[in-house]
Amino acid sequence: MPAPADFLKFVDGNEEAFIQRLASAVEIPSISGDPVHREDVFRMASFLESQLQAYGVETKSVPLGSHELDGQKLQLPPAILGRIGNDKSKKTVLIYGHFDVQPAELSDGWTHPPFKLTRDESTGRLYGRGSSDDKGPILGWVNVLQAHHDLKIPLPVNLRFCFEGMEESGSEGLDEFILAEVKKGKDGWFDGVDCVCISDNYWLNTRTPCLTYGLRGLTYFKITVSGPGKDLHSGVFGRMVYEPMTDLIALMSKLVDSSGKILIPGVDEMVQEASEEERQIYEKLDYSIKDVEESAGGSIALSDDKATVLMGRMRSPSLSLHGIEGAFYGARQDRDPREGLREVQHPNVNPLVISYIESEFKKLGSKSKLVIEDLHGGKPWVEDYDHWSYAAAWRATEEIYKQTPDLTREGGSIPVTLTFAEALGVNVLLLPMGRGDDGAHSTNEKLDKSNYIEGTKLLGTYLYEVAEGTKGQ
Amino acid sequence: MPAPADFLKFVDGNEEAFIQRLASAVEIPSISGDPVHREDVFRMASFLESQLQAYGVETKSVPLGSHELDGQKLQLPPAILGRIGNDKSKKTVLIYGHFDVQPAELSDGWTHPPFKLTRDESTGRLYGRGSSDDKGPILGWVNVLQAHHDLKIPLPVNLRFCFEGMEESGSEGLDEFILAEVKKGKDGWFDGVDCVCISDNYWLNTRTPCLTYGLRGLTYFKITVSGPGKDLHSGVFGRMVYEPMTDLIALMSKLVDSSGKILIPGVDEMVQEASEEERQIYEKLDYSIKDVEESAGGSIALSDDKATVLMGRMRSPSLSLHGIEGAFYGARQDRDPREGLREVQHPNVNPLVISYIESEFKKLGSKSKLVIEDLHGGKPWVEDYDHWSYAAAWRATEEIYKQTPDLTREGGSIPVTLTFAEALGVNVLLLPMGRGDDGAHSTNEKLDKSNYIEGTKLLGTYLYEVAEGTKGQ
Ligand SMILES: [Zn+2]
Ligand SMILES: [Zn+2]
Ligand SMILES: [Zn+2]
Ligand SMILES: [Zn+2]
Repeated sequence: MPAPADFLKFVDGNEEAFIQRLASAVEIPSISGDPVHREDVFRMASFLESQLQAYGVETKSVPLGSHELDGQKLQLPPAILGRIGNDKSKKTVLIYGHFDVQPAELSDGWTHPPFKLTRDESTGRLYGRGSSDDKGPILGWVNVLQAHHDLKIPLPVNLRFCFEGMEESGSEGLDEFILAEVKKGKDGWFDGVDCVCISDNYWLNTRTPCLTYGLRGLTYFKITVSGPGKDLHSGVFGRMVYEPMTDLIALMSKLVDSSGKILIPGVDEMVQEASEEERQIYEKLDYSIKDVEESAGGSIALSDDKATVLMGRMRSPSLSLHGIEGAFYGARQDRDPREGLREVQHPNVNPLVISYIESEFKKLGSKSKLVIEDLHGGKPWVEDYDHWSYAAAWRATEEIYKQTPDLTREGGSIPVTLTFAEALGVNVLLLPMGRGDDGAHSTNEKLDKSNYIEGTKLLGTYLYEVAEGTKGQ
Repeated sequence: MPAPADFLKFVDGNEEAFIQRLASAVEIPSISGDPVHREDVFRMASFLESQLQAYGVETKSVPLGSHELDGQKLQLPPAILGRIGNDKSKKTVLIYGHFDVQPAELSDGWTHPPFKLTRDESTGRLYGRGSSDDKGPILGWVNVLQAHHDLKIPLPVNLRFCFEGMEESGSEGLDEFILAEVKKGKDGWFDGVDCVCISDNYWLNTRTPCLTYGLRGLTYFKITVSGPGKDLHSGVFGRMVYEPMTDLIALMSKLVDSSGKILIPGVDEMVQEASEEERQIYEKLDYSIKDVEESAGGSIALSDDKATVLMGRMRSPSLSLHGIEGAFYGARQDRDPREGLREVQHPNVNPLVISYIESEFKKLGSKSKLVIEDLHGGKPWVEDYDHWSYAAAWRATEEIYKQTPDLTREGGSIPVTLTFAEALGVNVLLLPMGRGDDGAHSTNEKLDKSNYIEGTKLLGTYLYEVAEGTKGQ
């Protein structure tokens, strides 16, 4: 069933207050990857918890232990759990989101201060780090709660919340917590959950809402090549010694070619070629080469064929070289590059990668030393979209946006998705709020005001559509 | 003729004062490559000028104009000129040195603060940025001046000084100044100069003094590959677009291999293979594979054959990859690597390098954009060591060190060397003060106290040996 008209009206009438809510959240620079900002992640957790409490949600702040970051021992930010409704005749929906953000500095090229929500009245864009990833969406849920609280309308489903503060840094501590809760059975926080809804990705383009049923995994490697005991002057040592930089560049050049083809034997082959039928799915998506070029800011698509480009993102493994640490004048001690491999369906790609790099390094015949580290990663995930939760989201999208949603798979990873799917044994839906050009993790991240407001309506409406059938239907 | 005993005694007796002089100079962080420290380079120029004046040298501070650095317009540090003696019956020696230094920060791995001269009493080492490159040597000349001034002994030759403050940053402005002075003929500052002596390099090892008669040139390129308009998330764009980082790594991997061989066709071939006779010169030098490994801090020599390794440094071209600017998470806008090519005798290698990189880039078939910049460089230089100035330095070395000097060529570049040789048409001698493990441009740069003190004696004695013949001999 559609959401009550009062709810939709409330959302439109409280636009300014909702934007102010997002502005308050963006002002807290909750960067999980920077020890300097760890306290801000805790502040952001408290902010979110108090918002939930204000609208009648029972909350719990769960410590997740400590970890080491940049040589410092730090407390992990807590998971913020929430519970509202316990009606056995209603379905129970678990909502996940994260309140940490990527780093951002004005000097990276931001047009506005990244931690001050800045409105562009002419375009309706709300600029700020975290506006789209993922503060906008989690506050969309808070907006839904406020509407029901203030209007004194009961929620159509029971809700459980699980918000974390380490998503941008490998979700440390969360998997263990979820698994431990599930082990508790009836006493666990997630007992009775019928489906999971995550709003932490984006439309494929800037026009068409989508439902997302697959994510690539990620494995992240760090390769260090070392040799001399200190920086060396190329005038004094050039062509006398093995230079780690030369070896490292040689290794990195053997991983992927300019066209995106992965050169590690067996990796591309792990994914079956698409059948003509599967290709049709990609042909039908509302997407064009112009879309990718607009969002990338350059005419740099790997192909002129839309389906090929979309399959590159959604179903093929990809390998990106993320840089080399340090800039210097000689043959420096350590080279510290990072390489990220996005993969589909084969979580055991890592040994293949490591043994390939080792064997290529041996071929160089260098006296440098090689260390390969397997850093944080995320598992790939594909969901069954022939499920009542997807059907509910489909109807809700048609009601709010008057458009048929695209059904997409995504290139990025949200590590917890598969954990929920496996540990809870329920369907997981990705229901994005933002657009394809929002620029998550990039400079000038934004959320369109219309996506924030209509998105809030969408999230609320989704709950009513989920409730349409009685429990178990 | 040997130097007077009084001079040698004065140097030994003033060891502490001389070290204090070096300490005062090291305390001025005269980093020419950093706009923040430009004022310190000017301070260092004044310090040096006042020292010269104190010992009777007529000086002149010559403005060299302005330039742009990191987007700022800056005044270039002045050249400090000096003149003492005008006796037509004496030879006239021109001394060159530089008072600017490389950057240094404690966090780079220095054991002591880099801009405080720190004595290790047990080893006799004097640690500090510029101690060996090139403040120690230029103050060695000041020590010689002080000795003659305080002892009231006339100098055996006429001296001219030319000290600059931009050597570590491409000697900007200096060539033009020298050429303009030479054009003035009789009125030019360098009129009447019979030979040039430069103390700005190092012994080949830690045991044997040397005279240096050749330097490799340097050409320095910056390659920028760009594509997208902003940082891109590898999860969203991986395998959809051409990634500049992939293209850049591919290009860099095609320049040099792990064994040091230059892959740009024609570059290695520009230098003739060594005859068996020339090979013998390298075999005879007091050098071992252990020396290179000790100074590099690792067992990383390219060969077990001493002559091969030495020829790699002294007569072969070498190509070092100096890094990639930036560390990041996505396919970033610009990649900004630097590549330095040390070459011998073929200053016209640049067009070859540029057209090779361009053609390799075309082969990639990428839609990224390539820009190659040819940054500062230095010309290669080889001198005739069968000259009275080298003979004088040879005798002076035997008198002070009781050792026969090595005759070496060097891997590094001192751009002004060739300018002096060509513009003045006189012999240029490189007479180093420091040892092969001093670590110029590296962390923990040092000068051994004995090199500073005996080196001061060597420079003074060299002047007496030059004076041995009457002018014109
Ligand atoms: Zn996110
Ligand atoms: Zn994110
Ligand atoms: Zn120098
Ligand atoms: Zn230097």
